[in-house]
Amino acid sequence: MQLSRQIRSITVAGSDGWELSRRARALREAGEDVADLTVGEPDRRTDPAILDAMDRAARAGHTGYAAIPGTDRLRRAVAARVVARTGVPTHPDEVLITAGGQFGLFAALSATCDPGDGALLIDPWYATYPGTIRAAGALPRPVTALAAHGFQPREADLAAAAAGGGARVMLVNSPNNPTGAVYSAATFDGIARVCRDHELWLISDEVYDTQVWDGRHITPRALPGMKERTFVIGSLSKSHAMTGSRIGWIVGPPSAIGPMTDLATHTNYGIPGFVQDAALFALGLPPAFEAAVAEPFRRRRAIVERALAGQNLIHAAPMQGAMYALLDIRATGMSGEAFAHGLLDAQRVAVMPGESFGGAAAGHVRLALTVEDGRLADAVARLLDHATGVAARG
Amino acid sequence: MQLSRQIRSITVAGSDGWELSRRARALREAGEDVADLTVGEPDRRTDPAILDAMDRAARAGHTGYAAIPGTDRLRRAVAARVVARTGVPTHPDEVLITAGGQFGLFAALSATCDPGDGALLIDPWYATYPGTIRAAGALPRPVTALAAHGFQPREADLAAAAAGGGARVMLVNSPNNPTGAVYSAATFDGIARVCRDHELWLISDEVYDTQVWDGRHITPRALPGMKERTFVIGSLSKSHAMTGSRIGWIVGPPSAIGPMTDLATHTNYGIPGFVQDAALFALGLPPAFEAAVAEPFRRRRAIVERALAGQNLIHAAPMQGAMYALLDIRATGMSGEAFAHGLLDAQRVAVMPGESFGGAAAGHVRLALTVEDGRLADAVARLLDHATGVAARG
Repeated sequence: MQLSRQIRSITVAGSDGWELSRRARALREAGEDVADLTVGEPDRRTDPAILDAMDRAARAGHTGYAAIPGTDRLRRAVAARVVARTGVPTHPDEVLITAGGQFGLFAALSATCDPGDGALLIDPWYATYPGTIRAAGALPRPVTALAAHGFQPREADLAAAAAGGGARVMLVNSPNNPTGAVYSAATFDGIARVCRDHELWLISDEVYDTQVWDGRHITPRALPGMKERTFVIGSLSKSHAMTGSRIGWIVGPPSAIGPMTDLATHTNYGIPGFVQDAALFALGLPPAFEAAVAEPFRRRRAIVERALAGQNLIHAAPMQGAMYALLDIRATGMSGEAFAHGLLDAQRVAVMPGESFGGAAAGHVRLALTVEDGRLADAVARLLDHATGVAARG
Repeated sequence: MQLSRQIRSITVAGSDGWELSRRARALREAGEDVADLTVGEPDRRTDPAILDAMDRAARAGHTGYAAIPGTDRLRRAVAARVVARTGVPTHPDEVLITAGGQFGLFAALSATCDPGDGALLIDPWYATYPGTIRAAGALPRPVTALAAHGFQPREADLAAAAAGGGARVMLVNSPNNPTGAVYSAATFDGIARVCRDHELWLISDEVYDTQVWDGRHITPRALPGMKERTFVIGSLSKSHAMTGSRIGWIVGPPSAIGPMTDLATHTNYGIPGFVQDAALFALGLPPAFEAAVAEPFRRRRAIVERALAGQNLIHAAPMQGAMYALLDIRATGMSGEAFAHGLLDAQRVAVMPGESFGGAAAGHVRLALTVEDGRLADAVARLLDHATGVAARG
């Protein structure tokens, strides 16, 4: 029996980019001491106070079907958060509660693309983007952002891709995974102009918006003429260390919320009510809580900078935001893939090959700053040793 | 800005069939005493022991990303349950843990249908089926099961629909929502033959498999030549009163589990680990637990039978399984829709119009047996009063 072409096309045949992460896990399970810097997940667990709120809600009986677009209270809380952080007027009817940022991406792509439509995305990309575009029936149309430009996409390149025709939507992510770039005002002005000029929808993945170290977070929904064409993807995964709770949201035009709620009804039938209540509690925590969740990444970014100082072989892309360091290892003469596998073999340090995130990150490796400070410093030192050895032999 | 045709097509314009349920809720929220028999959800909350297990798992740190096809332990437990209940050898690699039965339906339809392919479904259907088929890009191709045949689909009708061409999959549900039919061995033999003869996949929605009052539950996956072409949809929603936890599974050919896991990765990124651990605990409860969850529906079925005895105006379809009574009100001369709205207006009893479930249930109303026994008896008595009055006036 033949499966559908559609489902077989979600991941392209061959490496899915996570082979290294799987190798690292297998080594750990075999008892080896591996510093695993592959997983983009805070190394703290969900806070007990949030788990208390979830438990209270469940015991109070919020264990039946919950409202599929999200509970009224949670939609209001998300709208209030968006207003407070961006100043853009936002009604609860413009909010859909989703199964994490991932369902937000899928729903927004499904809402904007018919089968065969193009979706512009920036290379390097977050690992699930091409597959999510294909899962929605659309075609990924990558636009390269060069390391030489600090991984900021250029308006001329976006405009050229849009002019090619067939694209319905552009998908951007700032603060960016995997590059750590925070898009500048100029970058976003260009993005907005291209979307307006070419009648494109914009999906702005802002799940790292609490992790900005240089510059400031800009939401393109606040730019002129953009609110009516922009979907913002939000999540509690990174801001509140709630990755496993699978809860986030889309903010978008009210006309789109109904059809996206239909999609949720027919794919997952909503989000557990007790998880929604936990999210409501989390959003009510004082700003110091989110700052404390973000703080380790700011600290570890400085650790990586210090570790790289005084050598000239490995360069870090500007670490402006998010929880990653993207290191340029091209001076070793190796691909990111070969380097990462060699590093795991020789030093038991696991990092993601840049090639997993698109061609523009080739010759790079991504470090998730999600291990304890001392272990991170040690891992970077071993990475440098390894790079030096490779370069000397090469 | 135009939304995609695809997302706008999920629900057909006009009534979505839930208008009556919404009217009932609005009346309740306005302080009226409404007996709401529209919602197919057990009237008991999730058991505290299951919530304890969830809380323990969360506090033990199972709050990060969980394995996307499901944890090894939960997949093993589901496989063991399937073996115990059906005798069909089942490996954990044939199990995908899903966001309730609803994601199981979506994933199985996505795995079997490309855009424009046909999906046979039985009319009357569960309310989300046509939309789920459309959400997967396929076309609903209804096959009528007549009240006169106890709502069992006939092989000749299925074969004729399959012979029409373009269909890739057949979707069946026994015990059935909304009819309460439990498909017989003869019915399933016909279903299996049509699937084999016409090279169709089969999706068997068995979420009510713990609620069989007459006959016995048959899984078509156990029939000759069917295991390799059958997806079974399971869920803890009805068997363990865990509707709001959104957890279930698909059992299917191992070659399909990988692509469906890809779909899960790119749509929801898996199920909360603490919910998976709660499900694991629930599946480990003794059989008496499931029997106790099912028992009220058996009891209430008898209440409906007693209430209908001694009159000849309203007939119940055979209540062989699941938590519903489908009542034939055609003798009143009204449509199910008009009758249900009139009943809500006159008696504050809310039931679903049969038309919400397809043309074959026209002139019927569905009662979910999900209110307390005395309230159910009273609601049926008021329904009979109303029907008698309508018939007398008509």
